[in-house]
Amino acid sequence: MRLSQLFTKTTKNVPADETARNAQLLIQAGFIHKEMAGVYAYLPLGLRVLENIKQIVREEMNAIGGQELIMTSLQSQELWQKTDRWDDEKVDVWFKSELKNGTPVGFGWSHEEPITMMIKNYLSSYRDLPVGVYQFQTKLRNELRAKSGIMRGREFVMKDLYSYTRSDSEHQAFYDKVRLAYMRIYERVGLGERTFYTFASGGAFTQFSHEFQTLSEAGEDTIYLSRAKKIAVNEEVFNDTVLAQLDLKRDELERCKAAEVGNIFSFGTTKSEQLGVTFTDEDGAEKYVVVGSYGLGITRLMGVIAELMSDDKGLVWPAAIAPAQVYLARLGDSSGVVKQADELYNRLTAAGVGVLYDDRELRPGEKFADADLIGLPFRVVISDKTLATGSYELKARRAEKALHVSLDTLLATVDVKA
Amino acid sequence: MRLSQLFTKTTKNVPADETARNAQLLIQAGFIHKEMAGVYAYLPLGLRVLENIKQIVREEMNAIGGQELIMTSLQSQELWQKTDRWDDEKVDVWFKSELKNGTPVGFGWSHEEPITMMIKNYLSSYRDLPVGVYQFQTKLRNELRAKSGIMRGREFVMKDLYSYTRSDSEHQAFYDKVRLAYMRIYERVGLGERTFYTFASGGAFTQFSHEFQTLSEAGEDTIYLSRAKKIAVNEEVFNDTVLAQLDLKRDELERCKAAEVGNIFSFGTTKSEQLGVTFTDEDGAEKYVVVGSYGLGITRLMGVIAELMSDDKGLVWPAAIAPAQVYLARLGDSSGVVKQADELYNRLTAAGVGVLYDDRELRPGEKFADADLIGLPFRVVISDKTLATGSYELKARRAEKALHVSLDTLLATVDVKA
Repeated sequence: MRLSQLFTKTTKNVPADETARNAQLLIQAGFIHKEMAGVYAYLPLGLRVLENIKQIVREEMNAIGGQELIMTSLQSQELWQKTDRWDDEKVDVWFKSELKNGTPVGFGWSHEEPITMMIKNYLSSYRDLPVGVYQFQTKLRNELRAKSGIMRGREFVMKDLYSYTRSDSEHQAFYDKVRLAYMRIYERVGLGERTFYTFASGGAFTQFSHEFQTLSEAGEDTIYLSRAKKIAVNEEVFNDTVLAQLDLKRDELERCKAAEVGNIFSFGTTKSEQLGVTFTDEDGAEKYVVVGSYGLGITRLMGVIAELMSDDKGLVWPAAIAPAQVYLARLGDSSGVVKQADELYNRLTAAGVGVLYDDRELRPGEKFADADLIGLPFRVVISDKTLATGSYELKARRAEKALHVSLDTLLATVDVKA
Repeated sequence: MRLSQLFTKTTKNVPADETARNAQLLIQAGFIHKEMAGVYAYLPLGLRVLENIKQIVREEMNAIGGQELIMTSLQSQELWQKTDRWDDEKVDVWFKSELKNGTPVGFGWSHEEPITMMIKNYLSSYRDLPVGVYQFQTKLRNELRAKSGIMRGREFVMKDLYSYTRSDSEHQAFYDKVRLAYMRIYERVGLGERTFYTFASGGAFTQFSHEFQTLSEAGEDTIYLSRAKKIAVNEEVFNDTVLAQLDLKRDELERCKAAEVGNIFSFGTTKSEQLGVTFTDEDGAEKYVVVGSYGLGITRLMGVIAELMSDDKGLVWPAAIAPAQVYLARLGDSSGVVKQADELYNRLTAAGVGVLYDDRELRPGEKFADADLIGLPFRVVISDKTLATGSYELKARRAEKALHVSLDTLLATVDVKA
């Protein structure tokens, strides 16, 4: 895309009403727009990052047999009363309204109940199981405070997967597959090395749920991490009994701030008992379905990456989720420069390499500052100077210095497939 | 996808609480799930149709320079009061709620106001214009009644595009481009021949807005159509003055029921005056931006197609938006049949042809009934009988009879690219 066409602009002004680094940078670079506290629109560059993350998650969910669908935001009181989660005393993040005839409705902050009721229509025999279904859904949560930018919003995108299985062992096998799929996702988006499988509270259902925690000073959680064993314990369940159970010793653990980027739950048969979801097994006996729930915050993941990977000059996107791979800065508008830059833009675009082509009438310093702020993996400069030397100036976003390379080297370097 | 894996099932039972044919069929075939009146979830097959329609619309919006983004559902009272559209007396479809601190919030039923306020941040000079931005957004509208299935819902997906231009003539040029893009969309989804550009009320802003009306007995509108001139007039503006203006005579017009599948508006400078959106022109003068708004209901379009293209056996999807191209029915489970069916499934899938592979243990009649109900463009049957004759049984969804064809003919026929 040509930057002369892109309607967003960058700004040097740090938004005064944002304390979170991710929101500051994403607003300054034109990726997001603040509608109100905790509520952000995703502008063209931001939407591309979001869609790139979704596509990685989609591939990994499909690979473990997940079937994609999309539930609704509007929720019925009747349904949520069945599991005692309608009352504001029980769930304090509901947004509620009502139909014209006075019937109360809620706005989906979670979808375990409706998705399980929907699945119930299609389950009767053991032959219908196991089933894994997932969606990318905009969740609405009436959070008291919303100061973490897109890391915790009142409106945000979540991937939520649900599993329906015949037995605890079948459930555990699926749960393990999800765990591995999640680790592949964090690896692919560039957070693999600093994201850890973490034992957390299981609530009313099981002793533990499991979180995926990414080390970050901006995180809201505290975990105790064993780097050697690559597991962690959330502070909320950190005690001697738990440590003994997990065969962990206090002195091998490091206390860290972390951001939760995924959370997986076993519900056992609690939900299916509440909602009456049964199947007939091979012996003709009626049994309750075992249910699991697997969340992964898409917008939060984007926020964590923006926060962690940035430096003092701006954002630094991993290639797999960057809104484009190459920032092509054309300096000056001599006919030779324009011709070579247009040619490179067309060639890379035709090869499927995403390019932001800075064809604007701006000073070099302004273009370089924008390149750093927007944070694509590579910056390429074409100027009268590079033209004279017959080379291209190429700089990786994190590199100290630019290189002067041939066209072949340039093409080989930037042809990064996500 | 193997139907033994797909969690949805078809049903012969017509849902008792649905009067709309589109909802009946889509529920029976497992494409959608009713959450409450006018509120539907999209299950795997339904989501595929929706995404196929969105992709066609996306391509046509990008082709006219549209930039995709995504706004928010949560809306602020303050903003909508500026244009006097917060009050329930003025807009009677708001769902409203409030933040924990008592601040009222609304849920987006339209996005002209927030998108225009967002754009305002990026507009200062004539050089920043024209701009076209669009989104695929889930709209929430508190409709009094919701009896038309997915043709009019309380929660539905709309593509809304907005244009910001420097002058009426620049606006008109963009408006014309959108009109042509819309006609290409209806053509591509299979409604081209029965969809007509229609003069409708322009409300407070201009004399006319323009609708795209698809002839359908299930539609809520009445139009007066000139088939010869390929234009129509909505009943709401049908009078002698308008006919004279449009150079139409009563006796060349046909009165028809129709469903509105798109609506485009010129706002002139009304919205930008209300919201203070100006630019500095080449002479240094400050001017108001000319605004246009272009809606296209994605879920409604799916509903209209489901309704219109169906027959007494079920749905009939146009190839371009079908959830898959081929329904592959394997009859029996002899090793030869399984082997050939598996091979064909793998071959078509590898070639990028979507296949629903009916590998279930069901009687032939049940498989054929499902093939007709689900409505893919082609049905292929592999059985001991076809194996014996060395041919494949191929039937187009609308064809009376099946053909027996060679593998080459089969591949050439079904390799339909959307």
